[in-house]
Amino acid sequence: MVARYAVVELAFEGPSSPPVPADQVPLDVVFRHESGRVVRVPGFWDGDARYLVRFNPGLEGRWTWTSEHAAPGVRGGAGELVVGPPEPGEHGPVRVAGTFHFAHDDGTPFRPVGTTVYNWLHQPDDRRAETVEAIADAGFDKLRFMVFPQAGGYVEHVPELLPFERDADGRWDVSRPVIPFFRRLDEAVELLNARGIQADVLIYNAYDNGRFALDALTEEEDAAYLRYLVARLSAHPNVWWSLCNEFDILDRPDERWTRAGERLAAVDPHDHLRSIHNWVRFYDHNRSWVTHASIQLGQATEDFGRASLFRDAYRKPIVLDEIKYEGDVPERWGRLEPQQLVHQFWISTVSGCYASHGESFTRDDGSLHIVAGGPLRGASPARLGFLRRLLEEIDGVGLDPIDNWWDEAFVAGIPGRLYVQYLGRSAPPTWTFRLPRASGSSAPRVGDRFEVDVIDTWRMTVSTVERRFVVDEVERNEAFAADAAPIELPQGEALALRIRIVD
Amino acid sequence: MVARYAVVELAFEGPSSPPVPADQVPLDVVFRHESGRVVRVPGFWDGDARYLVRFNPGLEGRWTWTSEHAAPGVRGGAGELVVGPPEPGEHGPVRVAGTFHFAHDDGTPFRPVGTTVYNWLHQPDDRRAETVEAIADAGFDKLRFMVFPQAGGYVEHVPELLPFERDADGRWDVSRPVIPFFRRLDEAVELLNARGIQADVLIYNAYDNGRFALDALTEEEDAAYLRYLVARLSAHPNVWWSLCNEFDILDRPDERWTRAGERLAAVDPHDHLRSIHNWVRFYDHNRSWVTHASIQLGQATEDFGRASLFRDAYRKPIVLDEIKYEGDVPERWGRLEPQQLVHQFWISTVSGCYASHGESFTRDDGSLHIVAGGPLRGASPARLGFLRRLLEEIDGVGLDPIDNWWDEAFVAGIPGRLYVQYLGRSAPPTWTFRLPRASGSSAPRVGDRFEVDVIDTWRMTVSTVERRFVVDEVERNEAFAADAAPIELPQGEALALRIRIVD
Repeated sequence: MVARYAVVELAFEGPSSPPVPADQVPLDVVFRHESGRVVRVPGFWDGDARYLVRFNPGLEGRWTWTSEHAAPGVRGGAGELVVGPPEPGEHGPVRVAGTFHFAHDDGTPFRPVGTTVYNWLHQPDDRRAETVEAIADAGFDKLRFMVFPQAGGYVEHVPELLPFERDADGRWDVSRPVIPFFRRLDEAVELLNARGIQADVLIYNAYDNGRFALDALTEEEDAAYLRYLVARLSAHPNVWWSLCNEFDILDRPDERWTRAGERLAAVDPHDHLRSIHNWVRFYDHNRSWVTHASIQLGQATEDFGRASLFRDAYRKPIVLDEIKYEGDVPERWGRLEPQQLVHQFWISTVSGCYASHGESFTRDDGSLHIVAGGPLRGASPARLGFLRRLLEEIDGVGLDPIDNWWDEAFVAGIPGRLYVQYLGRSAPPTWTFRLPRASGSSAPRVGDRFEVDVIDTWRMTVSTVERRFVVDEVERNEAFAADAAPIELPQGEALALRIRIVD
Repeated sequence: MVARYAVVELAFEGPSSPPVPADQVPLDVVFRHESGRVVRVPGFWDGDARYLVRFNPGLEGRWTWTSEHAAPGVRGGAGELVVGPPEPGEHGPVRVAGTFHFAHDDGTPFRPVGTTVYNWLHQPDDRRAETVEAIADAGFDKLRFMVFPQAGGYVEHVPELLPFERDADGRWDVSRPVIPFFRRLDEAVELLNARGIQADVLIYNAYDNGRFALDALTEEEDAAYLRYLVARLSAHPNVWWSLCNEFDILDRPDERWTRAGERLAAVDPHDHLRSIHNWVRFYDHNRSWVTHASIQLGQATEDFGRASLFRDAYRKPIVLDEIKYEGDVPERWGRLEPQQLVHQFWISTVSGCYASHGESFTRDDGSLHIVAGGPLRGASPARLGFLRRLLEEIDGVGLDPIDNWWDEAFVAGIPGRLYVQYLGRSAPPTWTFRLPRASGSSAPRVGDRFEVDVIDTWRMTVSTVERRFVVDEVERNEAFAADAAPIELPQGEALALRIRIVD
């Protein structure tokens, strides 16, 4: 019996010299569930005479399968599989949930607190493993990394493997993938999944800088590579797709990206999350192929009232996948103090958005963690792991700003049940109970009783105030516990308040 | 000879009892310019046996015209017209310019500083004229108003005219428009144009509240009304179209609005500006029929760094067409202090965006200026007129944020030539010369010489500092005049700085 969300791999034999070119699909397998659900999964060449189809069965029960459209010489087949419960801790691919948030396929909420190691795949095996240990231990649950190697500033190594063979003229031949390259990619994604980390796979590369010319493939070659990559990786439950980091560095019309995104949506049998990440010019995240807006704009998280505007504009989850980095390089994108980066994560949180971390301390070899990985040196990761644990405690799909019109404070939560108010890097001496109330909302009501946790976002402590607050006055946009004395706070600290309804 | 941008009206005879129903186009006229440009203009019924075609010739020179598709009984024709220079001061319809700004058809920049009188059309003639005098004298150059009458809070009058006849069952018959209603609309738009004010026409109505049932037309009836309205008004050079104010109050799927917007784009021969305005949920302003994002979200203008994010999201002009109102009503949308409203306009300005004014002091009759018009009582209009005059002085298409990544201050301008920095409602005692510099920009350069104007946004004064500032140090993201002593400022006032290059 196969576990729900496991990678089912079917192997087929076919021609080996030459093999079916990888820009053609060697065969499809159609999987049919007893409920009537049908999934068509493309196969791919895996070296020699070996052709694979990988499938992630999201449904328990009995599936039958049949191969179709086998290329000449590829021997197809048919069979069945019985799917049982998932392995413990495996919840399936992450999807959009509640418009602005994420949940695994089985409904378990997922709260992205991600980090970034662009050239992680191209490091030696031990460095790659060490990096995963470090980010998992810190509590990160998503990693952005590139398939193609990065070149340019702070890149101090030469990749061992490249993705394709070259033709007689020295041009990349996308019909001949380098199998060890892609097997390493498989293993890398599995390594992340074993530690509960989502693989946010950056498909194309804006940092080639003429070094490998992998940014000079034609659109047709890009499409062939995309189909191969997706056929190969899509069955892994922890895959997210990002077309490119800083796509607008490349001189390509947006229409080419749109076609690539729509192609991705069309060819992925498991319908993983899809995004595209900007440098200075935004892609139109309202496009239907985009599942969530992956945005670079650190400024949007540097003060209240900004990032939430992207929710208004896109009505999709907002992931601020680059808000500058904790580190010590001279460039202004890489010299944040850890307190500031943690501050920006908390602002993102009460804006109903998500953010990603990166570390840019100069390594001994001249590289940076965001390029090459290794141990983390910064002070922010522990605090972000703490934030993630608090996010995991939310009994609901996620935090939404309660009243987008409210100017004086920004509070996110679940109306009537949970409110998180971030007081910034320097809290006032006291806080008086007051909850925002969206126009038209019925919550909270008079008589509702709340407990308040004082969260020190830097010291990573949660202290519950030993009193209950009973709502006794409800106005159109605010609710009060008029009789309650103010709460005394450790003034000047970076605090948040968690205000929970109690029975 | 006809003036460029004048309304050319061709009259045709046709059946009068019954006339050609107004949900059918009685005839088209095709205008052909000697350059090869062709414009097809739909006609409309104007009462009795009278059928009109209105055309605004944007090109000087010789045009010929021929009627086509005349309905039975409508006598078409053919002819020619010679178009000469425009009337003095007439610059033609406003279009998008420079991605984020506006210019008239002849290239003259247009800087919207608008106001709002929703039910203006339904007031007595003298009130309507008085309102236009008041807003023109204050310096407003755009007026948002509704075609259909408003009902509900603060509406203290009954409209004299309604747009359609009723059928035997009492339902609106959109095939029988009330001609005096629409002639009044013509005159209203002309009255605005005579004072240089753009007519931002709100086509559908979310404030009917069941009173007139004009929000209960079918989609087909809405479409017939739209075609009639556009055929009738489109030749006026000062028309802007807005599908609806607070569209999301109405319980309609977004797709219906999209179809209406696309229909509007298809039927308007003069291709006027098109938008749709939200209550709490945004429309997708990335849609191609939308020419500029008309947004309600006061919060976005209450602090720096917010409104400019909409530029990133939409890459179109951003007009914050409701940022709460100056007034004294208890509701939080209508009790801004004038200083605060002026502040929000200045924040909009340095965010590279535009905003609209409205006044909500309670009138003697219980209504508000934003509903019924009349004289303006507030203190903000004079300051907004002052702002508009400053905007008119910009030698360029408009102000763009110089460095969207810069956290500490928000400065908009034209790189190397003009910088406007708003110092907020309470200026510091001094300002030291420093200009932001976008990554990759060459401006400003060492040796560039600047003058600085200190603008008191409330007292409406401009004082030029009697010194020149010579750039002597240029870093990646900033430029300095290192030797220049700080400028002393009237501390605590609401100031802006205008930093101009000089020869």
